[in-house]
Amino acid sequence: MKKVYTNSFTLLGLNNTIAVLKSNLFQIHKIDILENGRANKSIELQNLIKNKKFNLMNRNQFNQKYYDGKSQGVAICFSGEIIKKDLPALTNKKNACLLVLDQIEDPQNLGQIIRTAECAGVDGIIIPKHNSAPINETSLQVSQGAFTSINIYEVTNLRNTFQEYKSIGFWVIGVENSINTKLWFETEYKGKVLIVLGSEGRGIRKKVLESCDFIATIPMIGKTNSLNVSATASAILFERIRQIEGE
Amino acid sequence: MKKVYTNSFTLLGLNNTIAVLKSNLFQIHKIDILENGRANKSIELQNLIKNKKFNLMNRNQFNQKYYDGKSQGVAICFSGEIIKKDLPALTNKKNACLLVLDQIEDPQNLGQIIRTAECAGVDGIIIPKHNSAPINETSLQVSQGAFTSINIYEVTNLRNTFQEYKSIGFWVIGVENSINTKLWFETEYKGKVLIVLGSEGRGIRKKVLESCDFIATIPMIGKTNSLNVSATASAILFERIRQIEGE
Repeated sequence: MKKVYTNSFTLLGLNNTIAVLKSNLFQIHKIDILENGRANKSIELQNLIKNKKFNLMNRNQFNQKYYDGKSQGVAICFSGEIIKKDLPALTNKKNACLLVLDQIEDPQNLGQIIRTAECAGVDGIIIPKHNSAPINETSLQVSQGAFTSINIYEVTNLRNTFQEYKSIGFWVIGVENSINTKLWFETEYKGKVLIVLGSEGRGIRKKVLESCDFIATIPMIGKTNSLNVSATASAILFERIRQIEGE
Repeated sequence: MKKVYTNSFTLLGLNNTIAVLKSNLFQIHKIDILENGRANKSIELQNLIKNKKFNLMNRNQFNQKYYDGKSQGVAICFSGEIIKKDLPALTNKKNACLLVLDQIEDPQNLGQIIRTAECAGVDGIIIPKHNSAPINETSLQVSQGAFTSINIYEVTNLRNTFQEYKSIGFWVIGVENSINTKLWFETEYKGKVLIVLGSEGRGIRKKVLESCDFIATIPMIGKTNSLNVSATASAILFERIRQIEGE
């Protein structure tokens, strides 16, 4: 009989599999490896599965189960809580940044942003509990394992969360494309900040935007006027690193 | 009998359809609109199709043909040359930037980069003719219409292209994640530059990298060490804008 686990995910590829195996946060249920695949030649993976049970499959078996061409010949099934409950105070950090995503709709974008935020040293991601792309196999897959080393928090009311963080010395900075306000690089992200990005179609909700201390903008130089929210995240988060590192 | 056009593409969504209709570069073959869909309520679209033939379809008909949930109720079929042949000299520009993509593999990444580059005012994208993700419906779809207002060039030998541009005063800057070299914001992108990004797995090819005048890096601050190439593009291209605008 097939066991059913709650909060269980199956992800493909070396980055995801290695990240899950390296993390102590998850219960591993299954590792499937293609016998002549790229993953089976990875020394890093071999070391991680040394004392673990895994299934070596031939191409027919593997492709029948995992038809996505991006598997690199490995899949991992695991379970665990991805969403963390207690928001961090980050008291001891000189520079701290939480990234707030106000109702991102597309799981692909959510996954990309998790990946970028982790690479840019963000201390956590806050998403609203409702009307947001879910943390599911799509978003986790796209994050390429980054979800194992960045904390993701769900909150019911973003404005309450802003208040809590403001009371412990954080500034809240909303970022919108092409509006009439300060340019993104004229805004300071040093110290303790919440950086808020809005949804793909509608941007940051009006009341959430009104609760920000500062608003920054990236002007569009081309004609299309539609920078993807994950591209906005990258531009802003690495501008923050520039300001900190360039001190 | 169904007509077959060469270089013909079918793209979904308002951004793509509006961009194609606004451009004079393409021959429009068909516009399909869902009668109660979001696109049919778009005033901008209505104005653009006023004197054009289009098909109003009910949900059944439309969904049978376009099952992708991201269609917003509109699809356009058109043909035309996406790839431009003659590389631009950009003689009269004080600041000019061509983005070179050395064997990007994933059409999704290619599409995202086209979109980001257009928003960041890049003057064109250069891709090698061989071993590169193709300009196809996937990459064009993801670009959200940006391909209509940024020129894309194909070349057979990147190093020859570098030589040509160096001889007319361009600097060639390669960007790699997490290597031991100058940080990305310590490198100057003002003036005339070719910015080179490498493929997802292998980065910039050794001989191509050796032909660069400068190499810049974005260090990874997290554990995963794998910033997506489209995120790298965004960080670099908006750092360029910062340097130019912040003068």
